[in-house]
Amino acid sequence: MTKRELLYEGKAKRIYATEDDNRFIVSYKDAATAFNGEKKAEIKGKGRLNNEISSLLFTKLASKGIQNHFVERLSETEQLVRKVTIIPIEVVVRNIVAGTLSKRLGIEEGTAVPEPITEYYLKNDELGDPLINEDHIRFLKIADKAQLDEMKKIALEVNTLLQAIFTECGVRLVDFKLEFGFSTDGSVLLADEISPDTCRLWDLHTNERFDKDLFRRELGSLTQGYEEIFKRLGGYESCTK
Amino acid sequence: MTKRELLYEGKAKRIYATEDDNRFIVSYKDAATAFNGEKKAEIKGKGRLNNEISSLLFTKLASKGIQNHFVERLSETEQLVRKVTIIPIEVVVRNIVAGTLSKRLGIEEGTAVPEPITEYYLKNDELGDPLINEDHIRFLKIADKAQLDEMKKIALEVNTLLQAIFTECGVRLVDFKLEFGFSTDGSVLLADEISPDTCRLWDLHTNERFDKDLFRRELGSLTQGYEEIFKRLGGYESCTK
Repeated sequence: MTKRELLYEGKAKRIYATEDDNRFIVSYKDAATAFNGEKKAEIKGKGRLNNEISSLLFTKLASKGIQNHFVERLSETEQLVRKVTIIPIEVVVRNIVAGTLSKRLGIEEGTAVPEPITEYYLKNDELGDPLINEDHIRFLKIADKAQLDEMKKIALEVNTLLQAIFTECGVRLVDFKLEFGFSTDGSVLLADEISPDTCRLWDLHTNERFDKDLFRRELGSLTQGYEEIFKRLGGYESCTK
Repeated sequence: MTKRELLYEGKAKRIYATEDDNRFIVSYKDAATAFNGEKKAEIKGKGRLNNEISSLLFTKLASKGIQNHFVERLSETEQLVRKVTIIPIEVVVRNIVAGTLSKRLGIEEGTAVPEPITEYYLKNDELGDPLINEDHIRFLKIADKAQLDEMKKIALEVNTLLQAIFTECGVRLVDFKLEFGFSTDGSVLLADEISPDTCRLWDLHTNERFDKDLFRRELGSLTQGYEEIFKRLGGYESCTK
């Protein structure tokens, strides 16, 4: 499979057409951005780590029955995926209070959330990716009730599976963001990426951060944190199994 | 019924105990505030108009089967209400895009909302009354699912009834905010006020504003707008019927 025209360039990835109408190639960039693009940096190795971790997690989720857009890892920074039209909603699931939830509710970061909280954010840089609710989504005609229920159901299943995967390697899944797409047949399919760019991941015992907060809050080396996650998940050994 | 100790002073109302353990007296103030208290003014006659309009609307809603905390009008600025513990959520229903919804979604004010949008805001001045969702409400233990469903059901019924009441007198109900309380028996009861402070009300034909946006956006005389609403609803004639 070879890259044809560039279809889309986001903050952290490029999407290319291929000779197969139903396949895209995702190329992970070494760019780090935060606060809606206000903070930017080039971080060597980040694209590779996100591609490797995302490939690994999508593979694990597929093996547990969660269909997703991932087809195969092509190289250190590229993966082949099914063609989808991305639904412009970020679906966030939270197990521990952190980040914007802490600010919104005035509750200390680190507070446990007994039953996971699901949130929807509108993917719109100009509007600052605002929190929205199911009525807003219906009004915007982004997804109907059945499609939204399906996304939420998958997100909560992914949460259960990812919590198990991460707990096993000593990592606390604090929260994460998923994106979905409409497949060519119109069904909802898990897409985008699952990586330390899109998950908050803390050491189970020390609460050390291994995710993009390292960059957002300048807490330490981003690549060291991401490398630690990749290693704990099995690293290259697990990929070649 | 006589006023005893002041139990609570809000931006626009004072709540007093009475000799009856199950009754409060609400006294409407002449204060206007906006933008979370950043803009303030004393507007003579506002307390009277909000008390009269709110008394009138609560009476009309009760006659249509919507139980609420209103018992009776006591004077130009005071009403007797059932004792409730206010639930710290603002329930907003929207029929036309305006205000924060326009900003949140980047959609022009005045755009019709085909099916009403319901939103929940956390009543917390320090946090700026943030938009929250049902999962946040459950996490904060503010209300359980059945209580929240009950509030939403009542809010949508109130919307249908208020739309009919206002359309009949040439007014467009753009959006409104309700508050609910827990009665002494634990049930959810419609409370607070329904007035041009808490509703956006536009002339059906000219879109002239008759609500607090007159003050927020300095569009004209607040009391003239509120007086127009009171007059269209029947004014003192309707109150003495």
